[in-house]
Amino acid sequence: MNDTDKFDSVRALRYESGRLHLLDQRLLPLQSTWLTLHDAESVAQAIRALAVRGAPAIGIAAAYALALDAQAHPSLRGAELRLALAEAFGALRESRPTAVNLFWALERMDRALAAGADAAGLLAEAGAIEAEDLAANRRMAALGAALLGDHAGVLTHCNTGSLATAGMGTALGVIRQGFAEGRIREVHACETRPWLQGARLTVWELLQDGIPAVLVADSAAAWLMAQGKVDWVVVGADRIAANGDVANKIGTYQLAIAARHHGARVMVVAPTSTVDMGTAGGGSIEIELRDPRELMELGGQRTVVEGARAWNPVFDVTPAALIDAIVTERGVVERPDAARMAEAFGSL
Amino acid sequence: MNDTDKFDSVRALRYESGRLHLLDQRLLPLQSTWLTLHDAESVAQAIRALAVRGAPAIGIAAAYALALDAQAHPSLRGAELRLALAEAFGALRESRPTAVNLFWALERMDRALAAGADAAGLLAEAGAIEAEDLAANRRMAALGAALLGDHAGVLTHCNTGSLATAGMGTALGVIRQGFAEGRIREVHACETRPWLQGARLTVWELLQDGIPAVLVADSAAAWLMAQGKVDWVVVGADRIAANGDVANKIGTYQLAIAARHHGARVMVVAPTSTVDMGTAGGGSIEIELRDPRELMELGGQRTVVEGARAWNPVFDVTPAALIDAIVTERGVVERPDAARMAEAFGSL
Repeated sequence: MNDTDKFDSVRALRYESGRLHLLDQRLLPLQSTWLTLHDAESVAQAIRALAVRGAPAIGIAAAYALALDAQAHPSLRGAELRLALAEAFGALRESRPTAVNLFWALERMDRALAAGADAAGLLAEAGAIEAEDLAANRRMAALGAALLGDHAGVLTHCNTGSLATAGMGTALGVIRQGFAEGRIREVHACETRPWLQGARLTVWELLQDGIPAVLVADSAAAWLMAQGKVDWVVVGADRIAANGDVANKIGTYQLAIAARHHGARVMVVAPTSTVDMGTAGGGSIEIELRDPRELMELGGQRTVVEGARAWNPVFDVTPAALIDAIVTERGVVERPDAARMAEAFGSL
Repeated sequence: MNDTDKFDSVRALRYESGRLHLLDQRLLPLQSTWLTLHDAESVAQAIRALAVRGAPAIGIAAAYALALDAQAHPSLRGAELRLALAEAFGALRESRPTAVNLFWALERMDRALAAGADAAGLLAEAGAIEAEDLAANRRMAALGAALLGDHAGVLTHCNTGSLATAGMGTALGVIRQGFAEGRIREVHACETRPWLQGARLTVWELLQDGIPAVLVADSAAAWLMAQGKVDWVVVGADRIAANGDVANKIGTYQLAIAARHHGARVMVVAPTSTVDMGTAGGGSIEIELRDPRELMELGGQRTVVEGARAWNPVFDVTPAALIDAIVTERGVVERPDAARMAEAFGSL
């Protein structure tokens, strides 16, 4: 166990002896309940029901789901095994149609089958996907933590942690590593309306690892900065465009503007799979608008008058000019722009 | 009825035939229930229980509360009546110890007694307090609306409306007037965590008057501005310092920073009673920190892990440099600073 491991105890899933164990994130932080799943259909159902969330975690769960079903066909391999798993592939594909990592993981399992894999080969491939994600997160954590300097005050948004990945997390990986290295003075987490991932998941996850994150309302972030509490805003990304613009959870843009106003810096931590060199800039990224009711109910009870309207974008786009560093497992792009992004990711 | 009246139908309270009727704001927006109160003690209880909120509305309710109890003493006046009302004064004073307007209203009723008022005189004084508040709000509404220009997109925060005042409201008065004058293209309202006054009260109140406000998460405000939807941020104030710094509901500062970033303007609308020329600047204003549990529960259910911490400031301070106009019933201070504030309010 190295210094960081003790700050990385949380896991969203665990494969063991032919079963996939999933931490039911719908019940967090009040209960830590593990689901034990035996087949792909029940994993697909858990993905649909949001028991597991976070793009990398969903991809890993789907890969193991195929390995689970493959156990029933110990004598098959390659094309024959793929035929036997056709229904499982279908169910997983439909479990979260917008999750890019899900399709990426399914395709990788398909390539293993094309190369002749049997059940053991699929299990090894799922394990590799998980291990590679963890390794990438550890690499990003080390690169990002080195940027923090010493005695840093850090603010994060949404949940980008072990719950969303194979472990460590992206932005939370940097915070874990920075904490392990003694570089971090204090951590604040935005509650992240409307889903409250920061309040429900990030604060829980960090506290599990002994990192005392302090919760703030999304609206209090700038005032927190005015108190000198924030040197770095550290966030994840859903998509990064070729010019360094970053689409991420709604509220990220507002944090970046406030950070610039206060001389705090902004670090985006995301694997290269998030970088989309085919998208020129943030203006071409379509922002999903979700059901306005998400802003109109609390704990199942309506809080806003019937007939009211709400605008509920899930993501926003932070222009590259407001970002100080993009950290991927391939390295760091400081003050990102189209030229520096092309230099770093031209080969993607 | 003039053009604006039809956009000003909401009232937080109504005195009629010896009774005070209070709209129970705890039940909004799901129910519009009126409490009928016969004496000062029940009004004090309603203030304590937050059935009525908003500094001016609390002051008016307290003034009427004394008039209610005075009815039991038709033959008393002046010092004798004051003695008979001593208990009522005490109960009201303790109903919300931090509300400046409450003490201001009680003192004004006390001055009426000092001048020899009887029950009818106290009722007239309470009516005058209410009428003056409404008149001041109408004056601010006219002054503020004139600043909006045409076809303005407006964003507001918290609840500064008829529910918090004698009618019209402060920032919402400007929005009502601007809407009546056809100057406003669209209105957005921040939900205003943690109490959700924007979601629960402002959207309800504006919809009652046919003004279709669109709710947004506090974290979505900057992204809304990036869509070109906001020309003016229009907010109230809890205290305005001698240099024009404004203490207001947490989140106001973040909105002002985002507005400046997008070239949107910021209008603060508040009566002169809010201007505190004895406070040099925002740095001297103590910001109340409230119970962290307000960020940790939703509808009575805990959402954050036990043992977690939260930072829950109620107000923040927006520096004068980020404010384009302070509107009071005495006039408008554009680009406020110490010199312009002294010129406008030196005589306070």
